[in-house]
Amino acid sequence: MSSWLSKPIKGVLLDITGVLYEAGEGAGTVIPGSVEALDRLKEAGIPVRLVTNETFSTRKVLVEKLHHHNFSICETDIFSPVPAVISVLKEQGLIPHLLVHPEIECEFSEVLTGHPTCVVIGDADEVFSFSNMNKAFKLLMSLEKPRLFALGYGKYYKLKGELQLDVGAFASALEFACDIKSEVVGKPSPQFFAAALSDMGVSAAEAVMVGDDIVSDVGGAQKCGMRGVLVRTGKYIPACENHPTVKPHFIANNLSEAVDLIIQAYKKG
Amino acid sequence: MSSWLSKPIKGVLLDITGVLYEAGEGAGTVIPGSVEALDRLKEAGIPVRLVTNETFSTRKVLVEKLHHHNFSICETDIFSPVPAVISVLKEQGLIPHLLVHPEIECEFSEVLTGHPTCVVIGDADEVFSFSNMNKAFKLLMSLEKPRLFALGYGKYYKLKGELQLDVGAFASALEFACDIKSEVVGKPSPQFFAAALSDMGVSAAEAVMVGDDIVSDVGGAQKCGMRGVLVRTGKYIPACENHPTVKPHFIANNLSEAVDLIIQAYKKG
Repeated sequence: MSSWLSKPIKGVLLDITGVLYEAGEGAGTVIPGSVEALDRLKEAGIPVRLVTNETFSTRKVLVEKLHHHNFSICETDIFSPVPAVISVLKEQGLIPHLLVHPEIECEFSEVLTGHPTCVVIGDADEVFSFSNMNKAFKLLMSLEKPRLFALGYGKYYKLKGELQLDVGAFASALEFACDIKSEVVGKPSPQFFAAALSDMGVSAAEAVMVGDDIVSDVGGAQKCGMRGVLVRTGKYIPACENHPTVKPHFIANNLSEAVDLIIQAYKKG
Repeated sequence: MSSWLSKPIKGVLLDITGVLYEAGEGAGTVIPGSVEALDRLKEAGIPVRLVTNETFSTRKVLVEKLHHHNFSICETDIFSPVPAVISVLKEQGLIPHLLVHPEIECEFSEVLTGHPTCVVIGDADEVFSFSNMNKAFKLLMSLEKPRLFALGYGKYYKLKGELQLDVGAFASALEFACDIKSEVVGKPSPQFFAAALSDMGVSAAEAVMVGDDIVSDVGGAQKCGMRGVLVRTGKYIPACENHPTVKPHFIANNLSEAVDLIIQAYKKG
């Protein structure tokens, strides 16, 4: 058995887009074998949580999309940055200026109570216009203590077969202009992974994270003490296998292959 | 006499926007006293060159704007990143994908000879859409050796009284996503300042740079061995006076005040 499988596995974290399905028109396309792989994990009795930085839609819409593809998932299995950032904003009494996808603005209604005191940036796609970037920039420059919360910090994702700039790039632009650093909520933030692990009652050393993002998924999980498995689906490109700093514990062709190995190790463990 | 004036001054470099005039509708607004200040420098016989990162318009259009305001300037007095980057592209046989203002695309006609092998990013304002950023990103990701030439690297500039994100922010976004570094052509690149100094036949130690950008103008000039004077016009904000790393040799209320001191020192020197 490969050395990454020699330690016990008691829980699994999965990225969604690029691992369960490929993003595309409407609900996208299932990655062959992923529906059955998730079922096998559940049948084997291995706790599973989904950790996503996707903030194009509400968790409710995301679950509907997953159900459409026949994934056995409920909303509470999904950890996404929006509930996480809202609890930070409430704790600290902050009012956000939103640079996020219009679909999820409604989720912030309870914290939009007055003049903004910070900026929240998420997946926004076409909303990342010069004008909207400038509005966020000017607000940050007007604040005595500018704070920028980034819902994830990815470099790029894949949509309809094409790479697309992700939120980390636009957060970096604001960081540079304002001489600040983002506070990342979502992967690869250790607190974010910790919340999902804690929900399963599993320690980082007992968990495996499977994702298509070499930095946020694999590198982020490894920094927390988890094992990180990269899949050759989603935004994967061959250059990921020679990443200068992140070395995955294993590179699987897809979720199905990774799950077969995890289940074998779980049964022996 | 202040200590920054004790060494001889044999040449002066000036930034244009925010020092000679404020950007705005049409030709913008002259900064009071700047036309006369430039005339006094010339009457005193002090060599002057203008070093700008502005790439919203061709040098020809920039000179027309300056003449409209009665500045005594000719095109060869102006050092701008466009001719500088074109000579780099020609030397190295590179073909650019342009992420620049449409006004200056025509200047690149002689190097647009086939499939792009690098990206050139300049002041682009509304052209910095998600779609255009993505096109540049995807091209960079498709190149074996991705190269990004940035025409300047400013954080922000001032337009119609409002701060606006500058090219450095959007270059940073692409750098982050592609894991590369920009090659900056224009301020604060030492080669760029050196070309203007060499044209005057003046060494860095004998020259003063006057600008409204604490990092690109003042910090950049100081790194080359020049004295750097900040003006309280243009994009200046009070926070510049407490910049964590750049300490100007002098902070003048405007170009006119800086020029009076420079001329006094020149006459005594």
